[in-house]
Amino acid sequence: MTGLPHPADCPSLPSGADPGPAPGQPSPGGAPAEAPPDAVLAALGARARAAARTLARTPTARKAQALRGMAEAIRARAGAILEANASDMARGQEKGLSPALMDRLALDPARLEGVARGIEAVSALPDPVGAVIDTRTRPNGLEIARVRVPLGVVGIIHESRPNVTADAGALCVMAGNAALIRPGSETWASASALHAAMAEGLVAAGLPADAVQLLPSADRALVGAMLRAVGLIDIVVPRGGKGLVARVQAEARVPVLAHLDGICHTYIDRDADPDMARRIAFNAKMRRTGICGATETLLIDRPVADAVRPLLLDLLEAGCALRVCEELLGLDPRMTLATEADWDTEYLEPILSVRLVDGVDEAIAHVNAHGSQHTDAIITANPETAERFLAGVDSAIAMWNASTQFADGGEFGLGAEIGISTGRLHARGPVALEGLTTMKWLVRGTGQCRP
Amino acid sequence: MTGLPHPADCPSLPSGADPGPAPGQPSPGGAPAEAPPDAVLAALGARARAAARTLARTPTARKAQALRGMAEAIRARAGAILEANASDMARGQEKGLSPALMDRLALDPARLEGVARGIEAVSALPDPVGAVIDTRTRPNGLEIARVRVPLGVVGIIHESRPNVTADAGALCVMAGNAALIRPGSETWASASALHAAMAEGLVAAGLPADAVQLLPSADRALVGAMLRAVGLIDIVVPRGGKGLVARVQAEARVPVLAHLDGICHTYIDRDADPDMARRIAFNAKMRRTGICGATETLLIDRPVADAVRPLLLDLLEAGCALRVCEELLGLDPRMTLATEADWDTEYLEPILSVRLVDGVDEAIAHVNAHGSQHTDAIITANPETAERFLAGVDSAIAMWNASTQFADGGEFGLGAEIGISTGRLHARGPVALEGLTTMKWLVRGTGQCRP
Repeated sequence: MTGLPHPADCPSLPSGADPGPAPGQPSPGGAPAEAPPDAVLAALGARARAAARTLARTPTARKAQALRGMAEAIRARAGAILEANASDMARGQEKGLSPALMDRLALDPARLEGVARGIEAVSALPDPVGAVIDTRTRPNGLEIARVRVPLGVVGIIHESRPNVTADAGALCVMAGNAALIRPGSETWASASALHAAMAEGLVAAGLPADAVQLLPSADRALVGAMLRAVGLIDIVVPRGGKGLVARVQAEARVPVLAHLDGICHTYIDRDADPDMARRIAFNAKMRRTGICGATETLLIDRPVADAVRPLLLDLLEAGCALRVCEELLGLDPRMTLATEADWDTEYLEPILSVRLVDGVDEAIAHVNAHGSQHTDAIITANPETAERFLAGVDSAIAMWNASTQFADGGEFGLGAEIGISTGRLHARGPVALEGLTTMKWLVRGTGQCRP
Repeated sequence: MTGLPHPADCPSLPSGADPGPAPGQPSPGGAPAEAPPDAVLAALGARARAAARTLARTPTARKAQALRGMAEAIRARAGAILEANASDMARGQEKGLSPALMDRLALDPARLEGVARGIEAVSALPDPVGAVIDTRTRPNGLEIARVRVPLGVVGIIHESRPNVTADAGALCVMAGNAALIRPGSETWASASALHAAMAEGLVAAGLPADAVQLLPSADRALVGAMLRAVGLIDIVVPRGGKGLVARVQAEARVPVLAHLDGICHTYIDRDADPDMARRIAFNAKMRRTGICGATETLLIDRPVADAVRPLLLDLLEAGCALRVCEELLGLDPRMTLATEADWDTEYLEPILSVRLVDGVDEAIAHVNAHGSQHTDAIITANPETAERFLAGVDSAIAMWNASTQFADGGEFGLGAEIGISTGRLHARGPVALEGLTTMKWLVRGTGQCRP
């Protein structure tokens, strides 16, 4: 995730955030909605659709101008935004939020400048809208082209990091969409202040402020209404911990773009260079253990079990707990026996499950049985084995001789990402501007009638 | 829809078909499932997933061989298939199915040969699997490619036309997927006989028979289980009338690829050639009134209201009822006043709603307010006006100077189609082999660790 001020490349932290007060309770962001939640959503959705239709026809330069205007307004309003953030922080302190949550919630001048720069970076990305996917001329002379058009209305539901409102909203606008955003209740004041700056940027560029809307309150019933707003919202992107994503995936009637788990594997093949394996696997697990691309299970080809020992000792010495299969158990007394549940667990901590397998096919079978179709890697010097693994694992991202921690839209050169999807429909893997578009068929004729 | 033996390019007929007996009642296709429906689906889904993993790695030639084998087996088993169809027809007669339904149910040697040829045509289509969408090399040397891979497990729910089992199953297999098919209960015997031939073709090519499975019975509860089989079925394609599609769209927890309505418009602009407008609009409405691409509303730019009169008379004389706006009412006593509901109605009959508008922008606004985002056309000699319309209507297919009846995968040169989607996610418009795939990121490194 490029341009984000928080230390959070691809956050997949366990959710501790509160998804808002129960229905009917007053929210910290304002009075509870008076109208029934579905009626509130219908009104917001209609305004979003109208704004989306305008955005869809807005040239690239104008959209980029709006984003630069947002960044400027964020800088100009820094005082007010930081003040709003201070009130969120004070409320968080009162509620006894964890230090990790408080850190995600916090803005300071440097982080705020990072938010502004992130939006400017998005404004410089190539515009996917209008790109011609393919063309064909039919024997009857019809000329048929497929072109990219914006998706429409994107719903964003996020938790404690206030910058997501700015970051995700900017991506939506650049791809010609309207965004309907539900910030975490604990970040309501900060998100509202950021949103005001975004509206200023939109209006200064002559675009509708409705292109980025916040829900009118943190009333939890509005989240439910968002999730069933079929026809009003084209796709919902949950941005936060597992608790949020699981709720959204379970309840949503609208399509969801997300991943629930990142149970990533690194497989060290018999033909791996031992030094490379030692470096990559250590990085894949330990560089940052809390992100979705962190390796959770290490698979070791039986013939190299001994050669991999230095890696296991590195990990132990770095404080990583190793939960291993029975055969490996004797290698070091600090290791413990893995249970069946370990193969299906995303730790997001310095814990690694380790298993011996017999060759690449057993590794592929393990990944497909226990993985979450996120990111899985093979380390081998044998190109044939590598290609067998790349083709065989049913993962959004399959890697050869690289750290799974590279699973990130920024690292992939997409400039920014709205998230990583492990779904199979529409978009898969890191999703950036292109994933926020759909297509349209244009048929140009000269009077053809169908026989 | 290429290669279909039924007179039904893109059927969008009102459903009269019964979606199966109530839960627990014996089905015509076999005993009711003994196990709970979700358990039955879990077992079928696991077999489908295993077959899909094999199909995903099957080379094009082998898949094509399986399809040719299916076609051969259909010819070899023609006697048994037609006998099974006769029993379906007899049961349909007893149940008092309408003549239209009986016609859709019926197979004869010519229609069966059409089914076989349709499968052979699919076997000759270019294989989307393995196609490289794009590649990039990162500054750190990582080589990143996006390639097409099969979607996985496709659920098909169809009604009375038995050939859909063969047609849709063949498309799924050619794109490397497994298909799980629920034929209409009234076509169970025919679909089962066709399915046996498909299994024979798969096995003869060394592929798993589980690549195309039928549900074990027409027990209606199994349809519900299919629709909630998240993780087992990647996408469901309902093939049938509005009743079926509406039920599937309302109930499904798995993604659905479909269109509910085809409320298509033809707009005659002030700069239209009157003769061309007369020909195209007549074809768009009257060539076949029962298909989804048939025009249901004619929009006429006010300056050409008089010039369009011959077209309206043609339509009236061909037996088309015209429901018109107040201003047009005086043109001919056979015309009646349209109600508000008419602008939102898909007739699928020789009925046309007609309205005067003031120029292309009002036409666009009408289409976006009342259309179903299926197919909408403009007739004009003015390229600027045409491009304004093509960009402005939020439709899966936007046409210029051509009949909306061309909305069809075969006519678009896709070779075949599994359906037309008015959804915005994943696929839009006619969906063929490419729409039955997803993508995967392949990252090839030389030892890169993430800093």
